[in-house]
Amino acid sequence: SDNFFLLAGPCAIEGEEMALRIAEKIVAITGDLKIPYVFKGSFKKANRSRIDSFSGIGDEKALKILEKVGKTFGIPTVTDIHDVKDAEKAAEYVDVLQIPAFLVRQTDLVVAAAKTGKVVNLKKGQFMSPESMKHAVQKVKDSGNELALITDRGTMFGYQDMIVDFRGIPVMQEFAPTVLDVTHSLQQPNQSSGVTGGKPELIETIARAGIAVGVDGIFIETHHDPSIAKSDGANMLKLNYLEDLLKKLVAIRSVIKNF
Amino acid sequence: SDNFFLLAGPCAIEGEEMALRIAEKIVAITGDLKIPYVFKGSFKKANRSRIDSFSGIGDEKALKILEKVGKTFGIPTVTDIHDVKDAEKAAEYVDVLQIPAFLVRQTDLVVAAAKTGKVVNLKKGQFMSPESMKHAVQKVKDSGNELALITDRGTMFGYQDMIVDFRGIPVMQEFAPTVLDVTHSLQQPNQSSGVTGGKPELIETIARAGIAVGVDGIFIETHHDPSIAKSDGANMLKLNYLEDLLKKLVAIRSVIKNF
Amino acid sequence: SDNFFLLAGPCAIEGEEMALRIAEKIVAITGDLKIPYVFKGSFKKANRSRIDSFSGIGDEKALKILEKVGKTFGIPTVTDIHDVKDAEKAAEYVDVLQIPAFLVRQTDLVVAAAKTGKVVNLKKGQFMSPESMKHAVQKVKDSGNELALITDRGTMFGYQDMIVDFRGIPVMQEFAPTVLDVTHSLQQPNQSSGVTGGKPELIETIARAGIAVGVDGIFIETHHDPSIAKSDGANMLKLNYLEDLLKKLVAIRSVIKNF
Amino acid sequence: SDNFFLLAGPCAIEGEEMALRIAEKIVAITGDLKIPYVFKGSFKKANRSRIDSFSGIGDEKALKILEKVGKTFGIPTVTDIHDVKDAEKAAEYVDVLQIPAFLVRQTDLVVAAAKTGKVVNLKKGQFMSPESMKHAVQKVKDSGNELALITDRGTMFGYQDMIVDFRGIPVMQEFAPTVLDVTHSLQQPNQSSGVTGGKPELIETIARAGIAVGVDGIFIETHHDPSIAKSDGANMLKLNYLEDLLKKLVAIRSVIKNF
Repeated sequence: SDNFFLLAGPCAIEGEEMALRIAEKIVAITGDLKIPYVFKGSFKKANRSRIDSFSGIGDEKALKILEKVGKTFGIPTVTDIHDVKDAEKAAEYVDVLQIPAFLVRQTDLVVAAAKTGKVVNLKKGQFMSPESMKHAVQKVKDSGNELALITDRGTMFGYQDMIVDFRGIPVMQEFAPTVLDVTHSLQQPNQSSGVTGGKPELIETIARAGIAVGVDGIFIETHHDPSIAKSDGANMLKLNYLEDLLKKLVAIRSVIKNF
Repeated sequence: SDNFFLLAGPCAIEGEEMALRIAEKIVAITGDLKIPYVFKGSFKKANRSRIDSFSGIGDEKALKILEKVGKTFGIPTVTDIHDVKDAEKAAEYVDVLQIPAFLVRQTDLVVAAAKTGKVVNLKKGQFMSPESMKHAVQKVKDSGNELALITDRGTMFGYQDMIVDFRGIPVMQEFAPTVLDVTHSLQQPNQSSGVTGGKPELIETIARAGIAVGVDGIFIETHHDPSIAKSDGANMLKLNYLEDLLKKLVAIRSVIKNF
Repeated sequence: SDNFFLLAGPCAIEGEEMALRIAEKIVAITGDLKIPYVFKGSFKKANRSRIDSFSGIGDEKALKILEKVGKTFGIPTVTDIHDVKDAEKAAEYVDVLQIPAFLVRQTDLVVAAAKTGKVVNLKKGQFMSPESMKHAVQKVKDSGNELALITDRGTMFGYQDMIVDFRGIPVMQEFAPTVLDVTHSLQQPNQSSGVTGGKPELIETIARAGIAVGVDGIFIETHHDPSIAKSDGANMLKLNYLEDLLKKLVAIRSVIKNF
Repeated sequence: SDNFFLLAGPCAIEGEEMALRIAEKIVAITGDLKIPYVFKGSFKKANRSRIDSFSGIGDEKALKILEKVGKTFGIPTVTDIHDVKDAEKAAEYVDVLQIPAFLVRQTDLVVAAAKTGKVVNLKKGQFMSPESMKHAVQKVKDSGNELALITDRGTMFGYQDMIVDFRGIPVMQEFAPTVLDVTHSLQQPNQSSGVTGGKPELIETIARAGIAVGVDGIFIETHHDPSIAKSDGANMLKLNYLEDLLKKLVAIRSVIKNF
């Protein structure tokens, strides 16, 4: 396809009904727009600021829901892993293993993911330069796996803000297809509450810039009602806004693909 | 016009011949593409790192060349001022007075520019947030002048790098029409040589993102041969590349203007 | 003297009585502690965020107060200049001309200050690396003046925070004696109110680190009652706390001077 | 003791002979200076940029060397863990479990370390604010362990530089005793070689500032010959310089402990 691809879904798998409902809606939208779609959902959240933050509904249960979503709609799925022992287990259920940004320097984890033979989506650390993602991709390749993706989710800018450096997109595309995460890159971390803030009203701004620059894919966390989501509600896109956003992105893509 | 406008020209006015030659070329290109065009050139450079850097050919001489360019091609012109006493003088020759980024907090200078009644182009300080440009625009308005522009030329990111924060474009557009300076925002300041570096190969990347986000104008420093330019050669766009770049930007603009 | 020197006084000269009262108190404290003392006060404030911020009591009037303070107590004085034409004028009244951080890249201003033959105190731009201050000092020397000082007042860290990089102190000491401004370096700029915030409770922390690292001087803005000061109240040290602070700094200095 | 404590040793345990030799030297120095001393050594390196970087001599082997060092000199030891399953294992051999900066947001790992009952040394993430370390400490306490330490190892400043924010020391001391890592905080990450650079000539500068500010402990990686060390050679202090450095720090501490 000449189009960009989409990784989208809720931050965390909260239950089967919500996962299927969100997937169904996105499958319909992306089908119309001819956007290759990968369903995204975390089976656990291991890196919350606070110990009382939501961490999941049970690993096995969540992974099976991911598998069911994939089979129900005939689409690939992606989830993030936090531990070497997660790699093989998650690989039984999903198509893409994602390495969280905080963990992308953990060689054991990257190698374990790569050795499953699945696509490995490497999130750029908030503390890493675009150039330094070369080494993360190389670890996947050195493990005999050519299926690496890079996802940019922003870079630290002071303590409580993140910024997307669009200069980094072509740099990282020299190493692997590069995705822009338009929800996490708008986070405002290190808030005194211990709950990360966000600026969801700027999702379209960041996404339009990304597509214009030529990203290969877009990553969006979305939920029917972010205000009741159990994780990252401050950053997710309201699902009702997704179709309008994707239509705009497809329109920009249709121009720049001819450049 | 539904199009974006363009502020472009050499960093510094090095002489009449080069100014006319550059203007002629850009006038032809922008005429074809229906891009409103303002010729840009500095009549002096007052903020060089090193005392032996090029600082100009003489104020009066350079201002007269700017005036001649404007009359020859029937286009508006812009130059930057560094001193209260420059404001009235430059206003006799040009149509837009630009406040350099380092000086945009100098109330006297902003007010002096505003009082000439000319358009005032306020460059966002590399040390300022998009939100804080509200106060700079207000100083122009409080001086009885409604003709303010804002130009973003990037924000400090560590000591030797700058970054463009595209989240700031819609924020600043609430205060005034907002321009993206796609050459200075790629500077790499504070190099040990005392001469600012740059990444001109990324001009198109930054410009495409800016247009997609909806900037009102684009600012580009350009020269027939940046390698022999007397100022900022590391950042200028080779004039031969300008037409291709602008065609791409017009194509993106033609899509996003319908959003 | 083996001791560090002190540049201290109110942010702005608000009147003769307050200037003399503050100077008298600091002269007494520094006399006891054998700290060479330079009285500091701005005769105007030219770079406020907002046009309605306090900008001074009148240039001539404020400069004469500075002169009177100097003569009354037999101490040198320092004030900041914002314009080439200020240099000679201020030099008639004070002993040290200070170049504000935002303006330290303005060659004309630095050269004008240098040519008066007075000591020139160059504030490091918030957007400059320590290494790049070499070029600012060189402009003073190239103007035939060897009496340059550098003052570090912090570096931008994100949009709304500043940070002191103590690695820069020995770097800048290779170029000129280096002062740490322990009040402005705690500023929190770009607040949405347009009035810069601060963290005065951390003045002692920053000052102790500076002395331990070996700075040549300390710069402190202080006021009998910062809450009623007309400028920068959020950052000044309450004058009552000055003696205790300086005693601690002298104690640290007495140890490190033997290293 | 009124003195600060010291965590010091080689980056990685390369073998028994080198570990004992380094420990013996530091035990002698710290004994004379009455500095409580904890021997530091990593039993594996899991977060190298490049897959071909040195990652260790074997977990069991290295842990046993740490235990031998502790018993030989009657001193506590510290090592860093990267995986939940490391926690209990390492706790059999050492007294302090250290959570690497990249991993301090991994709740499972912090809780696993805390549940061993050992002291938990939480390194502040390079992407975290001092305030946000409150939540990491709380996770230790919520696991029934009151023995948390915090170690600051610098904060990202642009892509290729780190900075120590001394304002954060008193902030973090409200949560737990706070240590300054004077070697890693001088790293220059994201170098194009994939090998982190450093500025070891500034170790004394940073350490003096830390002691003056009142840190509870100092963390130093040191080696007889950093140029041949298998890991982090660019940042380690040459062991021969340690005594002189510590003497200076003790001298500063002896003054500030009376404040």
